[in-house]
Amino acid sequence: MTIETVSSNKSYGGIQGVYRHKSKETGMEMTFSVFVPPFDDGARLPVVWYLSGLTCTHANVTEKGEFRRVCAERGLIFVAPDTSPRGDGVPDDPAGAYDFGSGAGFYVDATQEPFARHYRMWSYVTMELPDIVGANFPADMSRQSIMGHSMGGHGALTIGLTFPGRFKAISAFSPIVAPSQVPWGRKALAGYLGDDRALWRRHDAVALIEDGARAADLLIDQGDADAFLAEQLRPDLFEAACRAAGQPLTLRLRAGYDHSYYFISTFMDEHLLWHAARLEEYC
Amino acid sequence: MTIETVSSNKSYGGIQGVYRHKSKETGMEMTFSVFVPPFDDGARLPVVWYLSGLTCTHANVTEKGEFRRVCAERGLIFVAPDTSPRGDGVPDDPAGAYDFGSGAGFYVDATQEPFARHYRMWSYVTMELPDIVGANFPADMSRQSIMGHSMGGHGALTIGLTFPGRFKAISAFSPIVAPSQVPWGRKALAGYLGDDRALWRRHDAVALIEDGARAADLLIDQGDADAFLAEQLRPDLFEAACRAAGQPLTLRLRAGYDHSYYFISTFMDEHLLWHAARLEEYC
Repeated sequence: MTIETVSSNKSYGGIQGVYRHKSKETGMEMTFSVFVPPFDDGARLPVVWYLSGLTCTHANVTEKGEFRRVCAERGLIFVAPDTSPRGDGVPDDPAGAYDFGSGAGFYVDATQEPFARHYRMWSYVTMELPDIVGANFPADMSRQSIMGHSMGGHGALTIGLTFPGRFKAISAFSPIVAPSQVPWGRKALAGYLGDDRALWRRHDAVALIEDGARAADLLIDQGDADAFLAEQLRPDLFEAACRAAGQPLTLRLRAGYDHSYYFISTFMDEHLLWHAARLEEYC
Repeated sequence: MTIETVSSNKSYGGIQGVYRHKSKETGMEMTFSVFVPPFDDGARLPVVWYLSGLTCTHANVTEKGEFRRVCAERGLIFVAPDTSPRGDGVPDDPAGAYDFGSGAGFYVDATQEPFARHYRMWSYVTMELPDIVGANFPADMSRQSIMGHSMGGHGALTIGLTFPGRFKAISAFSPIVAPSQVPWGRKALAGYLGDDRALWRRHDAVALIEDGARAADLLIDQGDADAFLAEQLRPDLFEAACRAAGQPLTLRLRAGYDHSYYFISTFMDEHLLWHAARLEEYC
């Protein structure tokens, strides 16, 4: 579990680092970023996971997410993994599309060839990387929360709903909530998981709620000027599933906001404070 | 003075826009960004100018500067110009170096060939672009302030000290304060201005102070782990010049911080609040 420091910059009194390691799950070198706020000797801090969207790496939120101020004030470690394996020998979308393959791992363990060997982002994000974070940073792994954007919002919801005891808070910006029912998701789930619809349901937040998964509460922000809202994101489907199931959900439609980091950064503070309140309950 | 909207994104309740126009000064299409915070109908808001450093465009601070939250709260328009002319026919550094030519206009009007036609960033930033901002945005041009980073800190100081009545606040992150005395500056001033040392002094903050320029006060933040500190930035020279001249200066050395936007974003709030206090005095 050796990790290599790619870069380390002081920011808001803490350290914004970028790290690289050889992943057993994906079989490739993986890069991720971690912000560690200022902390007292011996302290262990709660961990917020941020999963990124299509085409992104760790770098997008690290540069544009505007999360460090509140993380520094509230003592939160912020971890941003990559969105897929990358490098020589990793198969990509045959047509080079942005919504499958490189940058589009969809937080599943692929069962289909030629993707099954490397596309193991579910196990990477839920098992391998948490071990690395716990071993290399002043992290209290009994206090974790998870958030994400778009495809990463899908990941945050499906992972959070699968491990509700692990994550004290779950939130998303403009998430893909029903991949089984929208073009991005159908392409990805078919490509990585084949036609095993039972397996699809484990990677679909609406289906998880329908099948009985629950969390204490959920927070979603969605811009109403988001170009992907009606076709790909469909928060209405998640709202209906949560209402039918009695799952608490705060879904906020934000007038005039789009799908970009200009939207995410605007509401990052509110999400982090929502996470902090729930993580601090467990201190 | 027609400007074209390249992009427009809602953020923090306002609009982060990127705009393009044909510049008379530089003879090229120039791109700049403007954040307009939420405002009441008919309001005119103060304008903060941010000048960027070597290799940068408007985009670096627009994406990484973390200025929008405070600008939205305090009602500040934030303008970020490019750092040089760009495009076919614009001469660049003969060796392709990063510290001269494209991305390195140094906020001067070049007198030397082949740069004199296009490299007119002084007049562009102090005359042409202010007219465009005043005509196209809800800007109160009687309330302006200026800040910048590195080469842009040089620009902020030299422009601010040249027009102390125009700029109600002047601040800089890790500025080049004595270009006549450091490698980056000597190369740029010689290349753009030839050997006219009297002209160099008008583009050297230390020399301007020595020659009698004054501002009400000045604020500089500088990381003490900045790799360029000792050779290129030399805040000690500026501090000595200000002390000798009785020019008020707040210079803060920030332990552990480097030259990056991780440093700038950490202290952006403090600079903007310092500007806001001085701009609001003139309401």
